[in-house]
Amino acid sequence: MSKKPLILVCNDDGVTAPGIKALTEVAKKFGRVVVVAPDKPQSGMGHAITINSMLRIDEHQSHADGTLIYSTSGTPVDCIKLGVNEVLDERPDMIVSGINHGSNASVNVIYSGTMSAAMEGCLEGIPSVGFSLLNHSIDADFTTSKIVAEKVIESVLKNGLERGVCLNVNIPDVAPDLLAGIQVCRQANANWEEKFDKRTDPSGKNYYWLTGSFVNYDEGTDTDIHALNNNFASVVPVQYDLTAHKSLDALKKYEFTIS
Amino acid sequence: MSKKPLILVCNDDGVTAPGIKALTEVAKKFGRVVVVAPDKPQSGMGHAITINSMLRIDEHQSHADGTLIYSTSGTPVDCIKLGVNEVLDERPDMIVSGINHGSNASVNVIYSGTMSAAMEGCLEGIPSVGFSLLNHSIDADFTTSKIVAEKVIESVLKNGLERGVCLNVNIPDVAPDLLAGIQVCRQANANWEEKFDKRTDPSGKNYYWLTGSFVNYDEGTDTDIHALNNNFASVVPVQYDLTAHKSLDALKKYEFTIS
Repeated sequence: MSKKPLILVCNDDGVTAPGIKALTEVAKKFGRVVVVAPDKPQSGMGHAITINSMLRIDEHQSHADGTLIYSTSGTPVDCIKLGVNEVLDERPDMIVSGINHGSNASVNVIYSGTMSAAMEGCLEGIPSVGFSLLNHSIDADFTTSKIVAEKVIESVLKNGLERGVCLNVNIPDVAPDLLAGIQVCRQANANWEEKFDKRTDPSGKNYYWLTGSFVNYDEGTDTDIHALNNNFASVVPVQYDLTAHKSLDALKKYEFTIS
Repeated sequence: MSKKPLILVCNDDGVTAPGIKALTEVAKKFGRVVVVAPDKPQSGMGHAITINSMLRIDEHQSHADGTLIYSTSGTPVDCIKLGVNEVLDERPDMIVSGINHGSNASVNVIYSGTMSAAMEGCLEGIPSVGFSLLNHSIDADFTTSKIVAEKVIESVLKNGLERGVCLNVNIPDVAPDLLAGIQVCRQANANWEEKFDKRTDPSGKNYYWLTGSFVNYDEGTDTDIHALNNNFASVVPVQYDLTAHKSLDALKKYEFTIS
């Protein structure tokens, strides 16, 4: 009898976040589960790695069912590197990250620690998926997210994923009966319009808080933002080859000749 | 008479690094220059942003020629957001980042703070280029890098860049007379094979250092790694649309139907 699949679970909100608990519960339906996640919130960490300081791994009290839980002092990407290369004795069959408290749709994918963990899994050649719920609240309801995660994990374990591609799954903040379905989409062309909130500290020195509003410039009906606005969960295939292949020919006409 | 172009300079090695000094010198040949860079090294920060704490901006003694220099407590991406939205009174015509001490070729692009600053400039709709020299040393020789940077900046100021695309320029660590030229390339399919160096602290607790070796799996002659191995500077067009468009159709055949 073949072993049940081994699933590595990570996130960027930290090992104690409700979202990773929800994802762990879903993953356990499919196989053996090991959690390796940051010991503190690491939202907005992008694809950061720890190269100028050392890393710690702490083993937590494991679940009665054998689920092992580790927290690390590193970023989400560090957690994947540590999980695959140091914590686990065998190669995981799948990596899942999240469920993030807040959207990683559209351009948020490049700022997202949740998605960078999935991207790192993809770089390791392991089928990897990041999940995010469109609700930042600590007491968000993950019922719908768990339904979507179960469907996606089941399908990816069955079909695998193309090498070099991971999935960015976002889930609308609706009750299960309002979920319209799961849609495969492209990343919407949207962006943050930043505004810094400038304040003055008690000693008279200025400081700044990053704020901003999210603006969708994309009128396409095949985007993740459009899907989410219509109560669909969105699934975007994401690649780590950042080459703008379509721009190569135009760029070759630039005069880069060194005289 | 029209104003000279305004160029915003950033990096990830910190405002005092020799590489940003070299890049600032080159940029000054083309226009007015403002430097907004991290107050400390931020290598490997990826596309991290600061969302859970406040940011500081410090103005440094400016150069006699009017070059303004600011350091911030933020990441490279924060520096671009602060530079464009808070420091500058007008929109920059170009953003340059670097010159990084160390390669950002191939997959290093996704870990790179230098390139995330360029990517953020691109997201703001401003022609943006990241430069990196294949030498980590603090006393690296930037002579060849400055020649390449001058050529690329001149060409981008003249021709602009396609919306949604920035450039990842890497420079071989050779003297100017050994530079073979500048080549437009795609990102090589290469990766780090990690190895953690496990140690024990004086109290008996384990800690880990991330180490690894870079392995190129790509035999193509059109890649950045191939160009650099042949003493060419590499120019890769980089996009922030991470959608794996080629995978959309295959993924639509997955059974994501919620029963």
